[in-house]
Amino acid sequence: MSRRARILVINPNSSVAVTEAIDTALTPLRLSAGPEIVVARLEQGPIGIASQRDADSVILPLADWVKRDDADAFVLACFSDPGLHTVREAAGGRPVMGIAEWGLLRALTMGERFGIIALSPASIRRQQRYVRQMGIDGRYAGSTAVDAMAADTASPAMRDRLIAAGACLVRERGADVVVLGCAGMASHRRAVEEAIRRPVVEPTQQAVAVAISALLLKDS
Amino acid sequence: MSRRARILVINPNSSVAVTEAIDTALTPLRLSAGPEIVVARLEQGPIGIASQRDADSVILPLADWVKRDDADAFVLACFSDPGLHTVREAAGGRPVMGIAEWGLLRALTMGERFGIIALSPASIRRQQRYVRQMGIDGRYAGSTAVDAMAADTASPAMRDRLIAAGACLVRERGADVVVLGCAGMASHRRAVEEAIRRPVVEPTQQAVAVAISALLLKDS
Amino acid sequence: MSRRARILVINPNSSVAVTEAIDTALTPLRLSAGPEIVVARLEQGPIGIASQRDADSVILPLADWVKRDDADAFVLACFSDPGLHTVREAAGGRPVMGIAEWGLLRALTMGERFGIIALSPASIRRQQRYVRQMGIDGRYAGSTAVDAMAADTASPAMRDRLIAAGACLVRERGADVVVLGCAGMASHRRAVEEAIRRPVVEPTQQAVAVAISALLLKDS
Amino acid sequence: MSRRARILVINPNSSVAVTEAIDTALTPLRLSAGPEIVVARLEQGPIGIASQRDADSVILPLADWVKRDDADAFVLACFSDPGLHTVREAAGGRPVMGIAEWGLLRALTMGERFGIIALSPASIRRQQRYVRQMGIDGRYAGSTAVDAMAADTASPAMRDRLIAAGACLVRERGADVVVLGCAGMASHRRAVEEAIRRPVVEPTQQAVAVAISALLLKDS
Amino acid sequence: MSRRARILVINPNSSVAVTEAIDTALTPLRLSAGPEIVVARLEQGPIGIASQRDADSVILPLADWVKRDDADAFVLACFSDPGLHTVREAAGGRPVMGIAEWGLLRALTMGERFGIIALSPASIRRQQRYVRQMGIDGRYAGSTAVDAMAADTASPAMRDRLIAAGACLVRERGADVVVLGCAGMASHRRAVEEAIRRPVVEPTQQAVAVAISALLLKDS
Amino acid sequence: MSRRARILVINPNSSVAVTEAIDTALTPLRLSAGPEIVVARLEQGPIGIASQRDADSVILPLADWVKRDDADAFVLACFSDPGLHTVREAAGGRPVMGIAEWGLLRALTMGERFGIIALSPASIRRQQRYVRQMGIDGRYAGSTAVDAMAADTASPAMRDRLIAAGACLVRERGADVVVLGCAGMASHRRAVEEAIRRPVVEPTQQAVAVAISALLLKDS
Repeated sequence: MSRRARILVINPNSSVAVTEAIDTALTPLRLSAGPEIVVARLEQGPIGIASQRDADSVILPLADWVKRDDADAFVLACFSDPGLHTVREAAGGRPVMGIAEWGLLRALTMGERFGIIALSPASIRRQQRYVRQMGIDGRYAGSTAVDAMAADTASPAMRDRLIAAGACLVRERGADVVVLGCAGMASHRRAVEEAIRRPVVEPTQQAVAVAISALLLKDS
Repeated sequence: MSRRARILVINPNSSVAVTEAIDTALTPLRLSAGPEIVVARLEQGPIGIASQRDADSVILPLADWVKRDDADAFVLACFSDPGLHTVREAAGGRPVMGIAEWGLLRALTMGERFGIIALSPASIRRQQRYVRQMGIDGRYAGSTAVDAMAADTASPAMRDRLIAAGACLVRERGADVVVLGCAGMASHRRAVEEAIRRPVVEPTQQAVAVAISALLLKDS
Repeated sequence: MSRRARILVINPNSSVAVTEAIDTALTPLRLSAGPEIVVARLEQGPIGIASQRDADSVILPLADWVKRDDADAFVLACFSDPGLHTVREAAGGRPVMGIAEWGLLRALTMGERFGIIALSPASIRRQQRYVRQMGIDGRYAGSTAVDAMAADTASPAMRDRLIAAGACLVRERGADVVVLGCAGMASHRRAVEEAIRRPVVEPTQQAVAVAISALLLKDS
Repeated sequence: MSRRARILVINPNSSVAVTEAIDTALTPLRLSAGPEIVVARLEQGPIGIASQRDADSVILPLADWVKRDDADAFVLACFSDPGLHTVREAAGGRPVMGIAEWGLLRALTMGERFGIIALSPASIRRQQRYVRQMGIDGRYAGSTAVDAMAADTASPAMRDRLIAAGACLVRERGADVVVLGCAGMASHRRAVEEAIRRPVVEPTQQAVAVAISALLLKDS
Repeated sequence: MSRRARILVINPNSSVAVTEAIDTALTPLRLSAGPEIVVARLEQGPIGIASQRDADSVILPLADWVKRDDADAFVLACFSDPGLHTVREAAGGRPVMGIAEWGLLRALTMGERFGIIALSPASIRRQQRYVRQMGIDGRYAGSTAVDAMAADTASPAMRDRLIAAGACLVRERGADVVVLGCAGMASHRRAVEEAIRRPVVEPTQQAVAVAISALLLKDS
Repeated sequence: MSRRARILVINPNSSVAVTEAIDTALTPLRLSAGPEIVVARLEQGPIGIASQRDADSVILPLADWVKRDDADAFVLACFSDPGLHTVREAAGGRPVMGIAEWGLLRALTMGERFGIIALSPASIRRQQRYVRQMGIDGRYAGSTAVDAMAADTASPAMRDRLIAAGACLVRERGADVVVLGCAGMASHRRAVEEAIRRPVVEPTQQAVAVAISALLLKDS
């Protein structure tokens, strides 16, 4: 590539805390020879994606941003994968990755049945629909909610609740791999994994990693 | 009910022809003692829902309309069921029916495997996702596209193409019941059914019928 | 229609209490301009459909009744949907609706995972088979039995057991919508719904509502 | 066992030709030290099970016969497995095997996707329901009908049509193992297998074989 | 058959205790007029199949043994069904049955949802993969581990743990039929069945029974 | 990392041509700052993985190699993913990726229904089992065989056959994304994609890309 490629990771909510948590989580994927990874938030987005309306409200802004931005690839950093297919249309062939999609697919290779730590009962229902839509519900152990807003998930106080939710998924639902169901939970991945002694997947890292690969491979 | 109940049927596209086709199709469901059935189009909607962006672009306008309208029940008269869950949130407990949802569920009771007559390959992919999301893909024979815009489907010239598509679903995909995959196709239901000799479901009629029932039953 | 259309709702068991519970539940669907709705019981039917033999024993009597009766549509008001396909053959094209079928389909539009309040462990096994046969087991949270006969379900004393069963489906099986698994439970629908704070579906109402629509739409 | 055990194989239709075809097919399973195998037809049964009513009409006669007969195990030799669960109730713990059930399960071990040679389009729809009810539709390639009555299937003239149907299932539906969908087709198994060069399962043999085993193992 | 047919049942592990348990369990299937049933152990096999490597390590030895042995049919008596398809290739058309495969298929005819008593969490994961591979996961209630090695399962001390595991599958997972997930558990089948009051399937018996039938039927 | 990390990509067959095709395909993934990517062939492996025995015969050699090699991550570059779980046990926590697994998962994000270009009918059956085992058969359109050995797939003469197979999957099976079912086909990816105008996935690239990410992320 003549110029350095750039991946734009968009946090569809406007929370600075969540955006920073995402940015930090991507540090290991920033290679000198690899694409630039820029994390940004949708300033007009809601403070967190809680309702279905929240998720749907960011679709057109995301698509418009992607259309006018000359980044080489995009990652939608909200576990609802809001507007994934519309954004793909807007991207004109440039790769667009959803974090739920890639968090779940990565989990399929680390255990037999995945569980999801969800923000709320409403997110659980969205996850149930999405897992069925992806056609992977035969591997789905279930979701457990921590009853939090996205913006709170990055706080240290959240860690124990995430561990409790992860342990519940393993013990009561038979999950043997757990996916963090919000981009804001990224900083807790390792602690939850060590506490529950099963693999824990941080989804934004997975989506960005695949976006990098897609750029590297695009001319081959 | 002290005042007569009202069902608002919203055509999310702005096509007058489609709106009129819907209105005509609902005549048999207008009972003197039953709820009033009003059909309206989303004036700012696209002329047809072709892309995923088209579908997603109407979600907030639909939700806002529903929130401010005092109708007693709502039907979203586009086979993509755009924004169904967001509109339900906006309706505050009032019934909201999607026509794809109800066209497909009705078909489940009329045969073993349903096929869908789609507008285009892009609609087929949306239908594949939606059928999986509904969890009824074990009954899905497939979709066939007539390669038309919604606004054209009401025209007499379309009839032969719909019949050909329906026959293809029966003969090549093993469908034994066929669903019309666009509200604009309503006037052709009977002709297609007679030509292919298998039940053909007009989805808006089904969704409105269930909306009527939901109103009748809401206090019981 | 020159004469007023008539829907015959047949309770396949001979219980007068269940038949009356059904009749009462249908009051809201009786419109002056709509079809007449007649509820009758199969006098030679068992007092309740408990065993698989009970269910199978009513098939030919139901089919014969439907064949000789000139009603315009039929509803089989037993949650086993006994003989649904044979009765359809006998009806010669007139609509025949099963209450399990329609109770479950309606539930699909009110939540992500439905549970069923069953009479007994034997009914649970029939429900498991039927849900698989319908191809909607990906949405099925499970059934819980109240260990009662159909004829007892209409009694006030049953209400607390239904509520406990519904709450169990929500809390332990992850159901977010509940279907009453016996026509006799109809009078408790609202109380259970209010107690468990999730939608509760009374299946006979749903099947009759669709029968009405089918009649209204039959010439369109 | 003090007396020799006896397996009663009941052909639910009244066709003598089908009954004889079944009887001949079971010759290899008649061991001097094994259970006696008696094949009988339901004299009041229809000449063939064509409609759903045909299938349902034999349930009570089969259950009553099984209840009063002191045979040690039973096989229902019609590919609709009519009344399987009711007959099991009547058998009071004695084994009851269905031929569809065992023909299909055996096929699961001989290929990845099974096809069924059906009598008619109506039998295909029953098979689709039954395969879903068994929960093995993920392995089902489809059915093809020869448009014949059960009583005709034993005739030499049928062989070419069975071969054509089997070849169609392999070539067009991707079946790699084929099940004969009527007990009367038994005498053609080998010829079809040799012609299509894929395993062909005769279902009555399979069901009787498992009935023998169940008797041998019942006290262990 | 000119000479008496012989079925070779191979215990892929080298445990004498397990081999003896298998041999005893097959006594009822040894008929004077039927095939000879020989049980042997793979001497170079591991003492038990605990890891996936254990399972994979026996594939080539099993295939080589089958290739050079002139037995008429083979049963692989380990619940991992190790190398089933490779052994089938080696058998050159002679029947090869896996015990997991046949234990599970038999269970499908004795209840609606089967559970498996597993040796360990690692076996549970293999079972989850295998049940999905068989395409019968819609009928799978789950597995529970007794945390034992195969060689220990035949001991009297194991009985109570098997009963506890079986009861757990029924009570907590909704299983209504239970499969013993190790050939070594054979002697406990009846005791577990009586304790949990649901059918319990011993898988080696089922696989051998079908091997017998396959031999009896091979020339028909 | 103190020393540069290394990914060992093992071609389980001994074909030099296939190994070279793999090596070339990975060029875009070799970053100066990223892990070293070494491609090697299993010298004692068969010339191609054609039979199930071929696939199973390489499991222990692969596991032993992985155990004694100090590479940081491994990719099994055969579309049968032979011994994936045993190799994972041997790797002691180091990442092990299968190319079928990752080729298929990547395809899930590029279309609704994936097809696979297979070497032979025997590979198709392995793919059918594997897709079911992965639990993604709801997205599987089917496989088409080019009837070739792995070692031949890299030849220019193969290109037209791959294009024909890919076009067949799109046109006749309804695939909208195609996966190359052999590592040796890598050099044809782009040509097939351009010819059939649907995304074509080269699976080894995908698996190696994820191995790179797993290494980058392992301490986060």
